[in-house]
Amino acid sequence: MKKYVYLFQEGNKDMRDILGGKGANLAEMTRIGLPVPQGFTISTVACNDYYAKGGRVSSDIEDEIFETLGALERQTGKQLGDTTAPLLLSVRSGARASMPGMMDTILNLGLNDDVAKALEKITGNPRFVYDSYRRFISMYADVVKGYDRTAFEELLTIMKQEKGVSLDTELSSDDMKELTLSYKKLYQKFDGNEFPSNPDTQLMEAVQAVFRSWNTERAKVYRKMNQIPDSWGTAVNVQEMVYGNSGENSGTGVAFTRNPATGENVLYGEYLMNAQGEDVVAGIRTPESIETLKQRMPSIYAEFQKYARLLEQHYHDMQDMEFTIENGKLYMLQTRNGKRTTKAAIKIALDQVHEGLITEKEAILRIQPNDLDQMLHPTFDESELKKGKVLARGLAASPGAACGKIYFSSEDVMEATEKGDVAILVRVETSPEDIIGMNAAAGILTVRGGMTSHAAVVARGMGKCCVSGCSTLSVDLNAKTLTVDSIVLHEGDYISIDGTTGIVYVGQIPTIEASINGDFETFMNMVDQHRTLGVKVNADTERDAKEAVRFGAEGIGLCRTEHMFFEKSRIFYMRQMIVAQSKEQRLRSLEKLLEFQKNDFISLFRVMKGKPITIRYLDPPLHEFLPHTDEEIQELSKSLSIPFENLKKHISSLQEVNPMMGHRGCRLDITYPEIAVMQTKAIIDAAIVVTRENIPVKPEIMIPLVTDIKELKYVKSLVIDTASKLMQHHGVNIEYHVGTMIETPRACMLADEIAIEAEFFSFGTNDLTQLAFGFSRDDSSKFMKDYLQNKIIENDPFKKIDQNGVGLMMQFAVNSGRKIRPTLELGICGEHGGDPDSIDFCHRIGLNYVSCSPYRVPATRLAAAQATIKSEGQN
Amino acid sequence: MKKYVYLFQEGNKDMRDILGGKGANLAEMTRIGLPVPQGFTISTVACNDYYAKGGRVSSDIEDEIFETLGALERQTGKQLGDTTAPLLLSVRSGARASMPGMMDTILNLGLNDDVAKALEKITGNPRFVYDSYRRFISMYADVVKGYDRTAFEELLTIMKQEKGVSLDTELSSDDMKELTLSYKKLYQKFDGNEFPSNPDTQLMEAVQAVFRSWNTERAKVYRKMNQIPDSWGTAVNVQEMVYGNSGENSGTGVAFTRNPATGENVLYGEYLMNAQGEDVVAGIRTPESIETLKQRMPSIYAEFQKYARLLEQHYHDMQDMEFTIENGKLYMLQTRNGKRTTKAAIKIALDQVHEGLITEKEAILRIQPNDLDQMLHPTFDESELKKGKVLARGLAASPGAACGKIYFSSEDVMEATEKGDVAILVRVETSPEDIIGMNAAAGILTVRGGMTSHAAVVARGMGKCCVSGCSTLSVDLNAKTLTVDSIVLHEGDYISIDGTTGIVYVGQIPTIEASINGDFETFMNMVDQHRTLGVKVNADTERDAKEAVRFGAEGIGLCRTEHMFFEKSRIFYMRQMIVAQSKEQRLRSLEKLLEFQKNDFISLFRVMKGKPITIRYLDPPLHEFLPHTDEEIQELSKSLSIPFENLKKHISSLQEVNPMMGHRGCRLDITYPEIAVMQTKAIIDAAIVVTRENIPVKPEIMIPLVTDIKELKYVKSLVIDTASKLMQHHGVNIEYHVGTMIETPRACMLADEIAIEAEFFSFGTNDLTQLAFGFSRDDSSKFMKDYLQNKIIENDPFKKIDQNGVGLMMQFAVNSGRKIRPTLELGICGEHGGDPDSIDFCHRIGLNYVSCSPYRVPATRLAAAQATIKSEGQN
Repeated sequence: MKKYVYLFQEGNKDMRDILGGKGANLAEMTRIGLPVPQGFTISTVACNDYYAKGGRVSSDIEDEIFETLGALERQTGKQLGDTTAPLLLSVRSGARASMPGMMDTILNLGLNDDVAKALEKITGNPRFVYDSYRRFISMYADVVKGYDRTAFEELLTIMKQEKGVSLDTELSSDDMKELTLSYKKLYQKFDGNEFPSNPDTQLMEAVQAVFRSWNTERAKVYRKMNQIPDSWGTAVNVQEMVYGNSGENSGTGVAFTRNPATGENVLYGEYLMNAQGEDVVAGIRTPESIETLKQRMPSIYAEFQKYARLLEQHYHDMQDMEFTIENGKLYMLQTRNGKRTTKAAIKIALDQVHEGLITEKEAILRIQPNDLDQMLHPTFDESELKKGKVLARGLAASPGAACGKIYFSSEDVMEATEKGDVAILVRVETSPEDIIGMNAAAGILTVRGGMTSHAAVVARGMGKCCVSGCSTLSVDLNAKTLTVDSIVLHEGDYISIDGTTGIVYVGQIPTIEASINGDFETFMNMVDQHRTLGVKVNADTERDAKEAVRFGAEGIGLCRTEHMFFEKSRIFYMRQMIVAQSKEQRLRSLEKLLEFQKNDFISLFRVMKGKPITIRYLDPPLHEFLPHTDEEIQELSKSLSIPFENLKKHISSLQEVNPMMGHRGCRLDITYPEIAVMQTKAIIDAAIVVTRENIPVKPEIMIPLVTDIKELKYVKSLVIDTASKLMQHHGVNIEYHVGTMIETPRACMLADEIAIEAEFFSFGTNDLTQLAFGFSRDDSSKFMKDYLQNKIIENDPFKKIDQNGVGLMMQFAVNSGRKIRPTLELGICGEHGGDPDSIDFCHRIGLNYVSCSPYRVPATRLAAAQATIKSEGQN
Repeated sequence: MKKYVYLFQEGNKDMRDILGGKGANLAEMTRIGLPVPQGFTISTVACNDYYAKGGRVSSDIEDEIFETLGALERQTGKQLGDTTAPLLLSVRSGARASMPGMMDTILNLGLNDDVAKALEKITGNPRFVYDSYRRFISMYADVVKGYDRTAFEELLTIMKQEKGVSLDTELSSDDMKELTLSYKKLYQKFDGNEFPSNPDTQLMEAVQAVFRSWNTERAKVYRKMNQIPDSWGTAVNVQEMVYGNSGENSGTGVAFTRNPATGENVLYGEYLMNAQGEDVVAGIRTPESIETLKQRMPSIYAEFQKYARLLEQHYHDMQDMEFTIENGKLYMLQTRNGKRTTKAAIKIALDQVHEGLITEKEAILRIQPNDLDQMLHPTFDESELKKGKVLARGLAASPGAACGKIYFSSEDVMEATEKGDVAILVRVETSPEDIIGMNAAAGILTVRGGMTSHAAVVARGMGKCCVSGCSTLSVDLNAKTLTVDSIVLHEGDYISIDGTTGIVYVGQIPTIEASINGDFETFMNMVDQHRTLGVKVNADTERDAKEAVRFGAEGIGLCRTEHMFFEKSRIFYMRQMIVAQSKEQRLRSLEKLLEFQKNDFISLFRVMKGKPITIRYLDPPLHEFLPHTDEEIQELSKSLSIPFENLKKHISSLQEVNPMMGHRGCRLDITYPEIAVMQTKAIIDAAIVVTRENIPVKPEIMIPLVTDIKELKYVKSLVIDTASKLMQHHGVNIEYHVGTMIETPRACMLADEIAIEAEFFSFGTNDLTQLAFGFSRDDSSKFMKDYLQNKIIENDPFKKIDQNGVGLMMQFAVNSGRKIRPTLELGICGEHGGDPDSIDFCHRIGLNYVSCSPYRVPATRLAAAQATIKSEGQN
């Protein structure tokens, strides 16, 4: 026979799936001998059965509940509804994953008029009895029946007004009795029927209410936000009541085994004497620090401290505990792994390794890679938040906090920052031309664009705070104003933006700088000992490269050369090159660009000091470099001395219907081999200069958007011819490799052929995802929400690698590439390089490294180590 | 030792690869005992060796040439350069594939002053000798040295003027002697050296000149056009001269064993007495019909007729022969399979099957599928071509010929055709809104757009003649004029366009209608007996469906439902649906569209009479249905009563960066399930109506752009729910299937999962090709020519399936789909469905059918039969 109900003594901590987190921990504490008020747990399986039966508890389960209740009654020597030794119960939800505040609780269940009278005699404390009774009625009315709780609270308020008192505690036992009566009347008014006096009915109604609470709107929303499956269901914990409010010798409190903010290894918590848990939460009386309990009740404190230590030893982690003292006796009500700041988490993990409590591997698995972001970016000083006023909410596009004056164009930002101002760039959306402004600004705010918009991607790459898609804002570029409802901000006005939360504030909120030394450094060094997957960075500038090295990058996995051409002095020659009417004209412009690019590579080589730099050849369609408004075209027409109409026609002839699949990547080199030749010259020239400075260099030349070995062969031969001539001319030998992005499905299918020519593959999972699905990243937001909502897709494939489909292609390419060339170096350089699940996948399919944006490097190192540890566990 | 040179008697017809076509056939004729002037062939391997050695004949090969020459001298009893019995030679090229007129020939080699004098004595015909000598000098100067041949011809012209004659034949032997002298002087003036008198030198120079002729510009262009590999090289045929111009008892001619225009089984050809081959070509004297030779030289005619019959029996095909009669003796100079019209080819093939000369399979393999197009489309009456004047040349986008008045908008075309005019629609490029005009017009002419542009694809689908990308035209839509250079045509002026050649004419050229009965029908019936691959059609209208059934389609493989919404009365509701502000509004518009669509399906079901119809649900992004100019938006805003600005904003919000990968296909049904519901209602309602008429129906519902089984499941459940309710309501059961397009790489990879839900797959190879390569079909023309030129791609993958890459994905999907569902029906409905190589591939990977445009159906049936026959050959 199936078992649906478990006494605490029948369970243990590994039964989370069926007992829920709370139930499993109550069972575990019981099992290891801690003083826990006894009870039982109705399993999550019973909850699912309830829903499967259309919202009905099957008679089997009901029978089992009452049998188990009988066992509990025998354990406690008390009985539900009995007037000699009445058993009072709490009924609480408890799911597999913690869903704080999301679900309902009923206390003091078992009370009715007879039981109350009996308890009055037993406790000699009528005020306490009727206070409990009235609370039970209002909780029951609220949780089981869904009646408005505030209507009951109003009765309490009126009573306090009548009595001229301000605190509940000032009401007498008669007042409480009277309140109980009026609560019952109000209940009957709502319900039509009397308040149920049968404790068995009360219990079964409460159990079902908890089941139902699994599917309240707020619970569903919370699950969606936290990716908790609907199918898990909740367990119900039925437990004997203990009362922290039963006298001066009683109390209740919460405590952490260590400081959750700093990680310091001391008991940290607070408590209230003669109070119930909800009084602590209500915040009417100020709780005292747990330290003071040491003087007040030394033996209780010592006992609690002993349990705290025991629980930490037992769970191998910092615990968040609830306790109650009833008439001088300590009860443990709950324990769970405590939430903590990342700073604390790192300190605790390191300390626990030193204490021998956990292994290094356990310590590494304990930190969420994404949480490391907190450590790397400036944050708002929490205590100063009130200096700002929330203006709007957008997408948390790139973490960090920034405060500065608003400007509406890159030019204005540049001008302001040159004067020493701190600027926030505000745009409707950004385009590649805004890169300079984005770079100079302290933060970026856009009206349009999602998490993978240009602004978001570039800002993350720069490690710069960005809030995107803030659609309630309207921007007037001519008037240089930013408007939300009636609030109008002008150029130069201060705002503060939080890229970690997506909140935009009016006003100046001070920020706190990040520090990556101390415990952080120690922890990251430990992490590196445990990972086999390399971590490189996507970086195109000296600044990014320096940042990345500081964060522990082992090389540049993606240096996008096109970003180098957007600066004002360069884009002119780029544009001249693009609209050139002959190969000769084009060569002249390329000659100029060569100088710029060579210098860029010289600085990158100097920063990287022999760490490999994977340089991707020009990738975007050329029209991305050209102006599009008549005004800008007019300007360009003047500076290039090309008639406006001709230039406009030329620019429009370069437009594409589907630019993502247009004339870009290595296709440019096939039409204009001179571009590949120029880029090769720049790299090899730079390498020669730096080599002569006795700094080692390691260039890896990467040809993008390859679909066929013949494309790679063609471009590779241009590279080798050019490089060989230069090296011969200078009498210097530079070791370099030529490889390719694998970012088209066809390249995956033909990876074995391509590996004949390619010395390395770097998976461009952004484009590969676009092409595998036929989802344009720029347009998919139009339907992605419907896909997620209808559960057709579980995760946005632009955020987490689609392991089933795209992953299968990658696996195919890895296997067939390595079959041909066993030494083939394999990496990934898409946005996915920073996502922990994707990193884990990359590790499993055998890539050599992942490459991510500079500020993701520490998180990626951690995720890589976790991937190694997890895969060891599976072997 | 390697052999490079072969006497004719050493070769045979199967040695084409090394002897070339001409050489192999000369050898074969020798082998079977025909009177062939003897000679030898220098192989294609020697040609490749010549190029490999940087343009030098190796001494081994030179030695072998002279050894073989010795053997020839022994055979003929004549010697090169001898003054007693001098041997004169022709030196001609001959590649593996016929390259008519592309390469060079030298005749009369071996002549010098001494030999000429000796021949004068031997023949007693000095005029003939010096005529031959001067011709040799000018051919040698031209072919070996590259000197201007017209300079020599000028000398001849001057001579004729001086002598007051108009024909060469009127010049005397002295004139010829004098001309020979002045030719030699002119040669020396060009060259610096005297004309080479050493016949060995002449021979080796001539051989090398033929080798070099393989790489002339015109030869390279011809090879590119006809996809002949550069690596094949040419052979050189060195043969004893025979002279049709050596007297009244001599002559030369060409003949076919059957009539190449009609296929009639009679000798067909012409000849000239006392003439050389080039005289026949020059057209100065009018040749006589071969029939007249019967009277003139009965025994020669009988002998020739015997050889003709023998050659046809031997080669199992109609032959194209050259012959020469020298002093009453017949020589066969060449035989090859004769070119013929498709009409003739079909008749010949059928006749030869009846004659027992070839098998049905051979007959089927003999017709090129693409040639069938000639039979299906109107063509210009060749004899009336002079009624038009060539105006411009564009791309031969859709075959057929049309003549009509030009109009510049769909509206004007409609108006004109309603008045009974025949119209040609002239557009810069067409968009989906032009479909009605294209349908009403007799032909379409566009200024922009390639072979896969909207105009081209739709026109081919309609079987309507179209010339696209005619970029020398300029169109002024306001003035309604079409201008080329100084020619300006106005609305209503006549043009004639040829979609088979891409030529546009001013003026009216009469067309000849196609006929598909008689031999064509007999042949196609034979074809169907030999094919296993099904042939369906892409058709959306009653007209196309009727046409297709007439052409032998076995069902509709792709019915694009979106085309049904572009008609004026419908597009309004479509637009209303798209810009609807609520689901209720949208449902109201869909209600209207339902009626239209239901009627469309009723007529299709009636036409197809139980043949399956694969109906694809709405596929294109919705913005394709919306207007884009302010004027049109204004109009729509009025008719929809939506403020202009709102409507404009709504329309612009629907724009996409990469529409090909945007919100389209089944993604629309996931966002707007009501669209799928409406389409299902239309299909099932229509099916019920037609079923009640006792006409069988076979709807196959096809969900487009699926990437995951969950998408298909979602839409399929909408279909099934809707259909079940309707069928229940009407008490009728309709059998239908639900399947999917396989057109994303991810769907190929996950075909096994998708096959759980899909009852059929139809490969959408257009989109699959786009996504596999990341080539936007609309944009790829920008780089495709560079790819083809640099041989990175051999064929445009939008025309022929890329078997390596896209094909591998298809194969993967076929295998994994059938593994899960062995009865899975597999087809293809991309443009590739009409390409013979692609059809062959589809047969090989085991598809059940291919679907193509109506006018491609016969060609596709033929290609399918050929695929079956070829694959049998391999088993």
